[in-house]
Amino acid sequence: MKKHNLNIKFIQSALSVKNPFNDVIQVREWVKEQNLKVLVSVQKITFDQLEQWHFAENGRCLQHDSGKFFSIDGIKVQTNWGGVSEWEQPIINQPEIGYLGFVTKEFDGVLHFLLQAKIEPGNVNNVQLSPTLQATKSNYTQVHKGKAPAYLDLFVNAKPEQVLLDQLQSEQGARFLKKRNRNIVIKVDHDIPLYDNFIWLTLAQIKLLMVEDNLVNMDTRTIISGIPYGDLDEDIVDFYNDTNPSMKENRIASKLLKSTLVQDKALHTFDDIIKFITKQKSFLELHVEKVPLSSMSEWKIEADSIRHVDDKYFKVIATKVQIENREVVSWCQPMVEPAQEGICAFVCKEIDGVLHFAVQTKLEAGNFDIIEFAPTVQCLTGNYRISGIESLPFLAYVLDAKPEQIIFDTIQSEEGGRFYREQNRNMLVLAGDDVGMELPENYIWMTLNQLQTFIKFNNYVNIQARSLIAAVSFMN
Amino acid sequence: MKKHNLNIKFIQSALSVKNPFNDVIQVREWVKEQNLKVLVSVQKITFDQLEQWHFAENGRCLQHDSGKFFSIDGIKVQTNWGGVSEWEQPIINQPEIGYLGFVTKEFDGVLHFLLQAKIEPGNVNNVQLSPTLQATKSNYTQVHKGKAPAYLDLFVNAKPEQVLLDQLQSEQGARFLKKRNRNIVIKVDHDIPLYDNFIWLTLAQIKLLMVEDNLVNMDTRTIISGIPYGDLDEDIVDFYNDTNPSMKENRIASKLLKSTLVQDKALHTFDDIIKFITKQKSFLELHVEKVPLSSMSEWKIEADSIRHVDDKYFKVIATKVQIENREVVSWCQPMVEPAQEGICAFVCKEIDGVLHFAVQTKLEAGNFDIIEFAPTVQCLTGNYRISGIESLPFLAYVLDAKPEQIIFDTIQSEEGGRFYREQNRNMLVLAGDDVGMELPENYIWMTLNQLQTFIKFNNYVNIQARSLIAAVSFMN
Repeated sequence: MKKHNLNIKFIQSALSVKNPFNDVIQVREWVKEQNLKVLVSVQKITFDQLEQWHFAENGRCLQHDSGKFFSIDGIKVQTNWGGVSEWEQPIINQPEIGYLGFVTKEFDGVLHFLLQAKIEPGNVNNVQLSPTLQATKSNYTQVHKGKAPAYLDLFVNAKPEQVLLDQLQSEQGARFLKKRNRNIVIKVDHDIPLYDNFIWLTLAQIKLLMVEDNLVNMDTRTIISGIPYGDLDEDIVDFYNDTNPSMKENRIASKLLKSTLVQDKALHTFDDIIKFITKQKSFLELHVEKVPLSSMSEWKIEADSIRHVDDKYFKVIATKVQIENREVVSWCQPMVEPAQEGICAFVCKEIDGVLHFAVQTKLEAGNFDIIEFAPTVQCLTGNYRISGIESLPFLAYVLDAKPEQIIFDTIQSEEGGRFYREQNRNMLVLAGDDVGMELPENYIWMTLNQLQTFIKFNNYVNIQARSLIAAVSFMN
Repeated sequence: MKKHNLNIKFIQSALSVKNPFNDVIQVREWVKEQNLKVLVSVQKITFDQLEQWHFAENGRCLQHDSGKFFSIDGIKVQTNWGGVSEWEQPIINQPEIGYLGFVTKEFDGVLHFLLQAKIEPGNVNNVQLSPTLQATKSNYTQVHKGKAPAYLDLFVNAKPEQVLLDQLQSEQGARFLKKRNRNIVIKVDHDIPLYDNFIWLTLAQIKLLMVEDNLVNMDTRTIISGIPYGDLDEDIVDFYNDTNPSMKENRIASKLLKSTLVQDKALHTFDDIIKFITKQKSFLELHVEKVPLSSMSEWKIEADSIRHVDDKYFKVIATKVQIENREVVSWCQPMVEPAQEGICAFVCKEIDGVLHFAVQTKLEAGNFDIIEFAPTVQCLTGNYRISGIESLPFLAYVLDAKPEQIIFDTIQSEEGGRFYREQNRNMLVLAGDDVGMELPENYIWMTLNQLQTFIKFNNYVNIQARSLIAAVSFMN
């Protein structure tokens, strides 16, 4: 596909709610139906009852009997970042690169994405809208007889010109040790079967559905966040404003589109931003060393959980999952249960006619390269209840935001395959003159175009920031 | 400094051999004089005689008594890349980020770089042209009393607006374990003292001096390679061609400048190149595990060296260094001595009016992120003598290149602080219709502008490729 043509295809899809098959209301009904068809039971059990899982010698780690899938390891972290210079914690170690993929196809000239109503045991609401494919590397590289996920063959046999996007993206650095997934989007031109729990949606529809709590899953959000709309000039923004009657009435959607597309009006150049992050990476230290789970003095291994002595942060729990659909499937696995909900928010502000986002750099133990770009606010609610709401930059600001400042405010789920009912409040808040140009030392103003360019080059933008960027809609 | 103004300053410096202080011939003489002033003796000794260094318990590693500086560790490598799936090797482990810095200043409106005639024990010719500053992190972060390197204070006290470039860049992945240096360029506007072994040069002069064997050191080359010239349009190339009389006569310099500046005529988009590299990173595996030096079955620890049983690759040797200048300084250190010279070459070709470089992805054990972009040819001479010259893509092509195809062909030294007389032949070869558009699977055509953009985002372009890019001159 030629250069900008692909970007234009993505913009069209992000601006089109016309869909020959479903409107957004029908999609919501359809997800409800999918939910009724299935019975999911997640039972908390003890580690003794956790079939096919065991603690390795001397409580070194919690692992699957096959040595595959993932393990819960212990790490000791030493850093000169932030207020705590040393700590120990359990962490999910899943060295294999997972595959998250969308099949797309044009209907009436508009690119549609094939979503799956997928059950994950940790989901608060059982079924969420997931990418076409979530596969392990072994799924992907050697198709197992009869067990291949739906549509896998389309990805395995995709010709280079069918691949619209292919990026490596990080997962939660506080929970995963250097985990990365391959995010891939392919396009088919021929007819393909539409299986029972799959649905075609435009990008605009996916973004509209993200306004609903816990409906669009994390894997969908990470792929959507990396979709490039190109570096275009302001004329095209005017063009889209003119061709989409809703734009004129909704100035914020138009401003978001402009921040996504226009490159030359940013406050800082890419070179400036790279200087900003290099300086910090040069001074920051992050040493991560594996330690046995059983040796961590602030964490207790009990019969049914590995928990912090003060019940802070999260617990590792043992679960027995049973899913009843046409057949009954059942398995045991450890999951991570958060101690509390979190909040992730971007504050944005118009600078020289273009919306800029206040981005912070954040060090997390499992990061691939020390620090990543994170939302303006990213914290657990409990943390500020103890240390005071004023202790974190912009936290009070976003919590006190007036309704007219709030661009979106929804609850989003983390990945239900590993996390037990983990949710974060996702907010985008528009600031006016009440927020000045000056930011705390580890913050910098960036346009959406710049954030999306850093997403492209990988290991730069964390999943919390990407989840927020995915939700940016140019429509509502 | 405003956006493109800085890029223009760098281009001016790269196009200007006018220098109020020295022409290139005088610089060569000056380096000779610096060489005469100093007596360097590097004596090969035994590990027993290696003062302040020792093998850790059970021959685990070779380390300094203080635990500082660097150590020689053993690693076991497992990978599905290339023909060898598992091997063990010694590697230099130097976890601290080093600082490589240039002070620049405008004279007659042209940016000049402050180079140091620096002695390194491993240099074949004692003194090479080095950056203003080569410092360790501890040098940089806490200035030692009376022992601070020259000009360090200018870097430590630089205001953000004085910093022209600040990047993290990798070193040799086959020799260093995930080593990175901070490459920094600052600009001063006030007069500063010019110490005895320092000299001001334009970027054009540095590039002209790179044509000489082993004169410009590796640290200078890595910084120079990252200098951004901006994304400009073709008009500016015409402008420079018109204002520089030498340009019209030398079409290749003009073509190289165009490949550096022009972004929108590349064969592949950045998105395409990222797809290309993501696909490979997703399938490639690189597991590196530390093992004791003494346990490596194919490497022997002898009295005076750690060597491969077949004397291949390299040796770790023990040296006693003595440098006599006005005073006598002496110390012991291990060094890495190569078994043979190597060759690094880029093949370039005009595609749609813009020079493109054939770039390969290469996995090396110490890489930060599995694979990096490498030159078209990067190998040790001995390897192809055994496996046959035809076994490596483009090797026969560059060795048989006709004189009129050769843009440059010089011998460049690796870093003399760690490597004992290690040199590589650096070549840039212009291909015509004899090289088609089709490349082997792990190769891709890129413009200089694209290579330099990937350099900027770090962990993408290896030091061998950067050394070649640094030598690209727009003048000769």
